[in-house]
Amino acid sequence: MALRAEAYRNWGRWGDDDVLGTLNFIDDDIRRAAAALVREGRSISLSQPFDTDGPQKGWRRRTNPVHTMTDTGTDAERGNQGFPHGIGGADDVIAMPLQCSTQWDGLGHIFDHGFAWNGRRAGDVVTSDGDLVTGIEHAASVIVSRGVLLDVGRHLSPETGELADGHAITVADLEACAAAEGVEVRRGDIVLVRTGHYTRARREGWGDYAGGPAPGLSLTTAGWLHRTEIAAIATDTWGFEVRPNEFDVPAFQPLHQVVIPNLGLTIGEMWNLDELASACAEASRWEFLLAAPPLPITGAVGSPVNPLALL
Amino acid sequence: MALRAEAYRNWGRWGDDDVLGTLNFIDDDIRRAAAALVREGRSISLSQPFDTDGPQKGWRRRTNPVHTMTDTGTDAERGNQGFPHGIGGADDVIAMPLQCSTQWDGLGHIFDHGFAWNGRRAGDVVTSDGDLVTGIEHAASVIVSRGVLLDVGRHLSPETGELADGHAITVADLEACAAAEGVEVRRGDIVLVRTGHYTRARREGWGDYAGGPAPGLSLTTAGWLHRTEIAAIATDTWGFEVRPNEFDVPAFQPLHQVVIPNLGLTIGEMWNLDELASACAEASRWEFLLAAPPLPITGAVGSPVNPLALL
Amino acid sequence: MALRAEAYRNWGRWGDDDVLGTLNFIDDDIRRAAAALVREGRSISLSQPFDTDGPQKGWRRRTNPVHTMTDTGTDAERGNQGFPHGIGGADDVIAMPLQCSTQWDGLGHIFDHGFAWNGRRAGDVVTSDGDLVTGIEHAASVIVSRGVLLDVGRHLSPETGELADGHAITVADLEACAAAEGVEVRRGDIVLVRTGHYTRARREGWGDYAGGPAPGLSLTTAGWLHRTEIAAIATDTWGFEVRPNEFDVPAFQPLHQVVIPNLGLTIGEMWNLDELASACAEASRWEFLLAAPPLPITGAVGSPVNPLALL
Amino acid sequence: MALRAEAYRNWGRWGDDDVLGTLNFIDDDIRRAAAALVREGRSISLSQPFDTDGPQKGWRRRTNPVHTMTDTGTDAERGNQGFPHGIGGADDVIAMPLQCSTQWDGLGHIFDHGFAWNGRRAGDVVTSDGDLVTGIEHAASVIVSRGVLLDVGRHLSPETGELADGHAITVADLEACAAAEGVEVRRGDIVLVRTGHYTRARREGWGDYAGGPAPGLSLTTAGWLHRTEIAAIATDTWGFEVRPNEFDVPAFQPLHQVVIPNLGLTIGEMWNLDELASACAEASRWEFLLAAPPLPITGAVGSPVNPLALL
Repeated sequence: MALRAEAYRNWGRWGDDDVLGTLNFIDDDIRRAAAALVREGRSISLSQPFDTDGPQKGWRRRTNPVHTMTDTGTDAERGNQGFPHGIGGADDVIAMPLQCSTQWDGLGHIFDHGFAWNGRRAGDVVTSDGDLVTGIEHAASVIVSRGVLLDVGRHLSPETGELADGHAITVADLEACAAAEGVEVRRGDIVLVRTGHYTRARREGWGDYAGGPAPGLSLTTAGWLHRTEIAAIATDTWGFEVRPNEFDVPAFQPLHQVVIPNLGLTIGEMWNLDELASACAEASRWEFLLAAPPLPITGAVGSPVNPLALL
Repeated sequence: MALRAEAYRNWGRWGDDDVLGTLNFIDDDIRRAAAALVREGRSISLSQPFDTDGPQKGWRRRTNPVHTMTDTGTDAERGNQGFPHGIGGADDVIAMPLQCSTQWDGLGHIFDHGFAWNGRRAGDVVTSDGDLVTGIEHAASVIVSRGVLLDVGRHLSPETGELADGHAITVADLEACAAAEGVEVRRGDIVLVRTGHYTRARREGWGDYAGGPAPGLSLTTAGWLHRTEIAAIATDTWGFEVRPNEFDVPAFQPLHQVVIPNLGLTIGEMWNLDELASACAEASRWEFLLAAPPLPITGAVGSPVNPLALL
Repeated sequence: MALRAEAYRNWGRWGDDDVLGTLNFIDDDIRRAAAALVREGRSISLSQPFDTDGPQKGWRRRTNPVHTMTDTGTDAERGNQGFPHGIGGADDVIAMPLQCSTQWDGLGHIFDHGFAWNGRRAGDVVTSDGDLVTGIEHAASVIVSRGVLLDVGRHLSPETGELADGHAITVADLEACAAAEGVEVRRGDIVLVRTGHYTRARREGWGDYAGGPAPGLSLTTAGWLHRTEIAAIATDTWGFEVRPNEFDVPAFQPLHQVVIPNLGLTIGEMWNLDELASACAEASRWEFLLAAPPLPITGAVGSPVNPLALL
Repeated sequence: MALRAEAYRNWGRWGDDDVLGTLNFIDDDIRRAAAALVREGRSISLSQPFDTDGPQKGWRRRTNPVHTMTDTGTDAERGNQGFPHGIGGADDVIAMPLQCSTQWDGLGHIFDHGFAWNGRRAGDVVTSDGDLVTGIEHAASVIVSRGVLLDVGRHLSPETGELADGHAITVADLEACAAAEGVEVRRGDIVLVRTGHYTRARREGWGDYAGGPAPGLSLTTAGWLHRTEIAAIATDTWGFEVRPNEFDVPAFQPLHQVVIPNLGLTIGEMWNLDELASACAEASRWEFLLAAPPLPITGAVGSPVNPLALL
């Protein structure tokens, strides 16, 4: 694993102080060109709902969001809030893991043999005070670029639009899908890979959506992720890469281990790509402006996000 | 107050079932035209940092965000996480009021004499289960439009760029500022009003930024907010309207009371407009594409947001 | 239901301002006598563990406790905490429903047709600001008294010590169990009823421990709970009363509805009575000093508790 | 510091696997004798309130407790909860640092040069998963013993009952106070030292109660804490030891560093000793049964507690 990962290492590529990794591939020209892709003016949210009916089951203390009210309309209508001249208010609070629903993995989320992105020691980067170096706040303004949807689910399973759990998406799959769609993956793109796993979860219930068997990218796509010089990638599954992982020995998210700390790739997970997929299929256009800014939570290793596609 | 508010009521304007209020003013044509405003491809985040060093002091149980780690790089580097093949991870959790930092007020946030947006009883809308009708999730895909910055701070105080606490911004101020900038406020716009209050707070410390004296919109702007048919408005202050409120008797946020439940206006607060203001001044252009999608937290009456301006 | 509940109403019994209900039955004499029951000096905790491996599954947003660290020994040992002279520290945070594990139900927890304990309107007592009248903080010093264990599980099922799910414990069961143990239930007692449900959950896994079928008190015990003048009662089940509830029509916790707002009875749930049961059986003594002070969380309608039995 | 601490090390005293430290000094005989001290049957809570009006100001992310409702009486009375036959309910949630108010410091709370209690490496004990070895759950049943109140505030300042901030309590102070009270500190005792700091904070407002100048134990009491073989100690201040710390160079809680990891002493902080002090003074008796069981939060390095004194 260590050897293979080295082949795809971008350490030092953007200087010793870099905190953005492949997000550096996005520049103003790319963003301007992406804005020019907006033809209809249609806006589509790629976010799953954030609420207690989500997929989390407690793995490593990940729960679904708990949203509670500190003031309500029931109280306001009853007149017990103590405000003057008839004004009333409702207010609320949330407690949630940053990766409980639609999210970005930050660069401090995964380590390879004790090393974080750009070759830093993991313990120098993320302590119990958070990510002191590559916190998600550094990406606050940069994640807006051309989005490209590779609807691999629809491409490989035209009838159902869904890949089977355990289906490992290969480079050949990605390239054939792009060719069929007539779209070319380019430097600075945010690539969205739809597997249909979320579609299935919505129909059949969550089951083991969070961490169980799922379609996803094969470990063998690491080279493609590297050489295409994409800025980021996101899927409609819990974990982006195929589950179970492609090994006979116990393994856990090896593609994460290669691409986050070594490539410096930002990964999106649990995105809802279904409405976008319908819109793209209808228009036969698979590229759009994608704005997916993380919340700038200081020192966070991930962030909830409501990504918007503008077609 | 009740009488005045009635003059600006949009109840029923978009049907009995409406959950969006003035966000309905945004349509695909407006969004397409807004995307065409992107000339440089420059992206600017309008969010304040989300962390414990924020302005909250506990008013109505509003705290600053508490961000804690459930896994760290220190642990990963030490090798005590129990993962195979050298992979390590960091993960995190947040607990925060939804209106602790840069945010949207949802339509269920404020009531007028027991009534919520569109004339519904407040207690039918927001219970301790959250906003059952107009929750912020309904706005997940719609808040992207033309943004217009009215830098009233710079317009009225060219030297400091900051308005004094207690300065009530009038319709005349807004119109003069727009005229000076050569920009026309139009239907469907998201208007950003910069007062310089956040600039001052960053320089001098938070003080009473959250709830204390501040520049902000005068109650007398209600008619302008209504007749301009803007989709939303946001400022760089805690509470959007001037503080202390413009009454001799005890008052609390009367402009909120008029515009949220009556107009159906979505309000943004605690936005960081400083970098955007510099960029606009430099380019002498005060309009841009603004993408500010709330997190679709089911039933929330507000949402943290990282708004992006694309110039 | 309303009619039946009236027969057991203690409203006004301790004055119009009362906030303690049947906890008023405990007095200093009873506590002094209870202390005199301590013969061995043995102390037994009656609490379940508080952690993510608990029984909660999200019903009405009840999760298991989420415990996170804000400082760790890993960090301290690595020396990155910034403290002088070699001192290091660990610190932690919890987020939890107050009734997620071993707990007391406060008097504001349940209402009967809109009325709370002592005949107050529910909306005058518990708003989104918490229990403004009968908050659990009022019971901070009073819940220490004679404890009596009625091991009904062992009494009715000597071989397994466990009652079947759906078994409704009757007054006859309670009285026969007390007689067999040679103990008399008295005014001011805190009665602990062991069903064996927790024993089963520990052996077989949680399953539907939180809210599913369970042994528990029959609705017909309401009169016994009233006339015995006990101060409080606790069981080793999620909900104290038998589940499913004893009705052909849809019902939900009717005994709660009778005894909390009408009797003013404080109820303990999810207590771990197994070690205590063994100790009592061994010593053939079923009475002891019980100290079970709630955390004085201002305005809470329940509280986690670590009850101690001193034998 | 390292040298001095070694003189008071109890490492290995209770075996290599010990997780209790000086709590081992309490045995059944001591508890039985303590129960015999109960003469009046009076019960006094030694807890401060747990709510947002507490002393925390955000130091190392310590906030005051945030208590929110998931169901309310306002909703129940309005009848919008969806329950049958007129039952209504209120339920609640809390988020809080475990050491935000009246609390025990667990043995994993403080380290000395990378070492935890009993000579273990800090990073082997407390990771981001919590205290894997000496978590507070191990003390669930043991913290009940003879309590002794040393009212040093009243002893040294008979008129005000309060020591000045920065007053370092010496061994001579402790011994003189005990002698004046006619009480002897013994093996297994839980010693409560009242300084009057909380009395002052209640009168004058919190100010810098959490972390600022305060009376407290001198570093020179380490030997006394060791040789008296007390089980635990608690004070009415934020940090137990005198603040500022008694050094010319930057120092931080050196007595913690000596007594937690080296002696294995459990420390209580922010206890409310005022009502107890009055009762003791009135009865001229300074010993009582003290039950102060922590919540058994798995892996916690501290716990909120509502300690009960039974006189």
